[in-house]
Amino acid sequence: MALSPQLSEQPHHDGSSLYVSTPAPQLGEAVDVWLRIPKEVRATAVHVRSAPDGEPVFASAQLDRERTGRAIAGYGAGDQWWRAQVVVRNPITHYRFLVESDAAEKFWVTATGVSTADLPDTTDFRLVAEQAPPAWTDEAIVYEIFPDRFARSVTAGPLEADELPEWATACEWDTDEVIGRGERTPGQIFGGDLDGIAEHLDHIAALGADTIYVRPVFPAGSCHRYDAAGFDRVDDILGGDIALERLAKAVHERGMRLIGDITTNHCGDRHEWFRTAQQDPAAPEREMFYFDDDGSYESWYGVPTLPKLDWRSPLVVDRMTATVRRWLQYYDGWRVDVANMTGRCGAVDVNHDVARHLAEQIRAERPDAMLIGEHNHDAGPDLDRGGWQGAMNYAGFTRPLWTWLRGPELESADFMGEPGGVPRRGGVDVVRAIRQSAAGMSWRSLVHSWQLLDSFDVARMRTVTGSREAHLVAVGLQATLPGTPMICAGSEFGLEGGWGEDARTPMPWNRPGDRDQPTWDAHLELFGTRRREPALRHGGLRWLYVDDDTLVFLRETATEAILVAAGRDAAPSIELSLDADLVPVHQASAIDADAGRVRLPATDGALLRMWRVGGTARHD
Amino acid sequence: MALSPQLSEQPHHDGSSLYVSTPAPQLGEAVDVWLRIPKEVRATAVHVRSAPDGEPVFASAQLDRERTGRAIAGYGAGDQWWRAQVVVRNPITHYRFLVESDAAEKFWVTATGVSTADLPDTTDFRLVAEQAPPAWTDEAIVYEIFPDRFARSVTAGPLEADELPEWATACEWDTDEVIGRGERTPGQIFGGDLDGIAEHLDHIAALGADTIYVRPVFPAGSCHRYDAAGFDRVDDILGGDIALERLAKAVHERGMRLIGDITTNHCGDRHEWFRTAQQDPAAPEREMFYFDDDGSYESWYGVPTLPKLDWRSPLVVDRMTATVRRWLQYYDGWRVDVANMTGRCGAVDVNHDVARHLAEQIRAERPDAMLIGEHNHDAGPDLDRGGWQGAMNYAGFTRPLWTWLRGPELESADFMGEPGGVPRRGGVDVVRAIRQSAAGMSWRSLVHSWQLLDSFDVARMRTVTGSREAHLVAVGLQATLPGTPMICAGSEFGLEGGWGEDARTPMPWNRPGDRDQPTWDAHLELFGTRRREPALRHGGLRWLYVDDDTLVFLRETATEAILVAAGRDAAPSIELSLDADLVPVHQASAIDADAGRVRLPATDGALLRMWRVGGTARHD
Repeated sequence: MALSPQLSEQPHHDGSSLYVSTPAPQLGEAVDVWLRIPKEVRATAVHVRSAPDGEPVFASAQLDRERTGRAIAGYGAGDQWWRAQVVVRNPITHYRFLVESDAAEKFWVTATGVSTADLPDTTDFRLVAEQAPPAWTDEAIVYEIFPDRFARSVTAGPLEADELPEWATACEWDTDEVIGRGERTPGQIFGGDLDGIAEHLDHIAALGADTIYVRPVFPAGSCHRYDAAGFDRVDDILGGDIALERLAKAVHERGMRLIGDITTNHCGDRHEWFRTAQQDPAAPEREMFYFDDDGSYESWYGVPTLPKLDWRSPLVVDRMTATVRRWLQYYDGWRVDVANMTGRCGAVDVNHDVARHLAEQIRAERPDAMLIGEHNHDAGPDLDRGGWQGAMNYAGFTRPLWTWLRGPELESADFMGEPGGVPRRGGVDVVRAIRQSAAGMSWRSLVHSWQLLDSFDVARMRTVTGSREAHLVAVGLQATLPGTPMICAGSEFGLEGGWGEDARTPMPWNRPGDRDQPTWDAHLELFGTRRREPALRHGGLRWLYVDDDTLVFLRETATEAILVAAGRDAAPSIELSLDADLVPVHQASAIDADAGRVRLPATDGALLRMWRVGGTARHD
Repeated sequence: MALSPQLSEQPHHDGSSLYVSTPAPQLGEAVDVWLRIPKEVRATAVHVRSAPDGEPVFASAQLDRERTGRAIAGYGAGDQWWRAQVVVRNPITHYRFLVESDAAEKFWVTATGVSTADLPDTTDFRLVAEQAPPAWTDEAIVYEIFPDRFARSVTAGPLEADELPEWATACEWDTDEVIGRGERTPGQIFGGDLDGIAEHLDHIAALGADTIYVRPVFPAGSCHRYDAAGFDRVDDILGGDIALERLAKAVHERGMRLIGDITTNHCGDRHEWFRTAQQDPAAPEREMFYFDDDGSYESWYGVPTLPKLDWRSPLVVDRMTATVRRWLQYYDGWRVDVANMTGRCGAVDVNHDVARHLAEQIRAERPDAMLIGEHNHDAGPDLDRGGWQGAMNYAGFTRPLWTWLRGPELESADFMGEPGGVPRRGGVDVVRAIRQSAAGMSWRSLVHSWQLLDSFDVARMRTVTGSREAHLVAVGLQATLPGTPMICAGSEFGLEGGWGEDARTPMPWNRPGDRDQPTWDAHLELFGTRRREPALRHGGLRWLYVDDDTLVFLRETATEAILVAAGRDAAPSIELSLDADLVPVHQASAIDADAGRVRLPATDGALLRMWRVGGTARHD
């Protein structure tokens, strides 16, 4: 006997409030967890397995309630909700379900779904007794700004070459080309400044974003400023400390948030810490870096302008702690550059200790501060440990969506240096990648991770997809899947770019012809819908149907359910086990259920549709 | 375009010496790794991805050699060997392959096999720069002894009740029943002693075993002695220190090894450390345990006779260190009881630190000592960290084989308390479980882990399978799969037992009717074959074919290949992509290849067959 292979007829649990009694359990707390099982499965017993102090134990679940027919977003033939308790014995308490049934052989339910094969614990669900992220981050929509390229303030006047340091070349905002590659790339300064950001808050707010993430603002030797020459002042080119103060004030007056960008992994070779350390082997600063006897030193990716910080050094701990605390007078948190590399060097690995230390220090300064780590491969093992509250989710979001939606014309958009470019994958592979990645972290870390389609470090999604239609399917997924959307400034206009540096285009404020109006309109509608619908922000995620070209899923709270169908190509109609009428929300028409099933109509191209599941709350 | 779904036509890599230039890399070393690809795949480029200091990087592989037709155990149409270098930058350096091809879309190869879906790093291959296990453990075959039940020495005379402590009941070796459950279970003493073991070394050696693992020998309050009353002397009932000295001498004179059993997680409540700590809250020993203010304390699984040790206590560190070092005058290493729980208690988790400390201390005392941790679920995350050299592999070996071979009559053999008993799974699920578990650790940890069918803590495999034929298929897999076989004393006679305590039967030395001669003969033949064939001890593992009832795999070195086909039931004939004649080794007849394929004949019941792949070395 086997379970139905149909996703829409499989038992389900996730970490959302529909299935877990608290998102922020304390150590020692008994947490209620529910497993939802279609009646057809004829479950006879349900157990939950956890492994307190490293030893697996089972606890029995009780049948809590049954629902039939027209119940909210139920399975076609109704469902059972089984409740069990998991005691949060350890800071990360993992658990999975075991189901005995009259209709199928005994099976597990883990965060990758149903399995009759025994699985390692790596895909178990997780309850995390570390400090929860601040409440405001539960609903954040982030907007990423490259300060040199976002906006030059009205008051700043024309950019003059003689205001600039020796490494910089003044460029004309609307006429000079961004040089994507070569020696001149890091030196291009277009003159965006922090007051320019403050002048465009309307734009950001209109988009639905409430959290502005500004890439580094410290003085440096390049336009990207990841090679900080100091962490103690804001670059004068950007307007100096006073401009940051003004920006923070303007942002906060609107109830928005401002996030800074810090390189905990390295500084620039112009930084006085490094200069002192390099010039004088006896200087206290010498221990802050990884110097060899011959004067060579560790640096990010072997780039000598980016000397790596040694977090075993008390000086590094003290000075970086002071840095991250100090700027929280303006910032509401930090995005940490290459968080995946921080504190890791050969035999040394203090990454988790550094992350926890930073989180504690930041919390001590500002209990409501955000802390997000950049991570471009498998973030799960670095999360849930009292450090980063989430990751920039390149591996679990960006990459799967790129592989699903990449255009046929795309020659080889670079994804983190992968040879052969970005492959085009079918939906089954893509959803497997999404689920596998998500299963490696708690639900809480997943929803606090930044779900980005692109950033100033990779190609633009518009370029990856090669079409407005496919791009907007991606934006629709960003607006509807769990996680914290992060929009890269300019992508709302459909800007293009083949790789990070190439994507650092000055914003086309004065070039209406470079702004794609339908793309902008779709952003407003999609993120507006996310803002309006609690299920899209807080709901669970249940995959209902996946094939090469179509992904269908439900976002559900206790009172509301939104059904999302994303297609990358023309697709036939699809039948789902769902006993509820569907009310159109986005690019859809009404559908009535028939005998516990609904049929989504065929489509003739890339399209994302949304429906409210009948009978659930409406939010206008 | 897709790869052939046939396992025997898929690219392959594993951690064996056929594919990796060294099993014991040093930090900073560049290691050669080979990926083997069938020619039909028409690979155009191969890359290896590692993540030094947390950041993924790719390196190109070169086509090293091609083989055609009759080459050793090649694919049917020949194969290519691509070589790349991985720099061992970190103590655990993980890597995976990326293949571009003219015949299939770009795909990954990780330790779970080929995947077009992107996977988390958890199944990456691993190079480990920690100290390698001692060389002798590469070939060990372990024999587990429950000292009270193995043999009473000739010189000891009859067991007298008045020699025994108050908790013990003297039992008659061949006539009293083992009481499997209840208050009387732990008190049964049958009188086995260490000299009795010394008297039966011929038996153990005949079986091919060379490493004797003796369960605890310290004075205690039970026959199993996991509740040690002291770690400083051998129980007089077993013959005292002098008997251990005699046993060690006898074992070592034969070139065999002796492994002790230590509870690092807890001691017994009769132990003077605990008695002192409990009686006097001001005693230094108080810190050695987890006492609450009300005098309650943490204990193993809540069993109050097994108070849990707090490894944050310097006294615990000092005294346990002295203990494990001291007994290495006799023992060649330790098996660590509930290694998975050691050092874990609520918010405290110093497990990996304790494991590393013990490994270092043991190595300082005896560079050739073995250190194996008991682990009954997902051992991978606790291995490869400079601590346990391997695990008792319940999750990755015992459990999969139980689920594949459990008999139809088995009501509900208990596996680690899992409700609903042991399910019967098809071969696809079983091999998935084996591969997923193995992928969670390095090849080195896999081959040094103890592959057990049963132990004195679970049911006997004979009982689980319910038949000699299926039991011997299991023994055949134990003798042919990678890993260190561990035979539970008595299973070589086909003894039965429904759970751990029930399986602690006194050995039937005097009861020839309780010894199943064909089972004994098969053990001699199967482990003799393992002893004789280097491929079975050191070869790589390539799965060739899996269905519900049949598992086929190759073990291969550079000069020898053994093909193993295990069936749990009658099975039709099976065709494999393999261009070599097969020479019978075990329960098989000769097979000639035809056009790059061989056809294994049908079988009519549970059977394990072995062939040497034609042209490879013969070892007699």
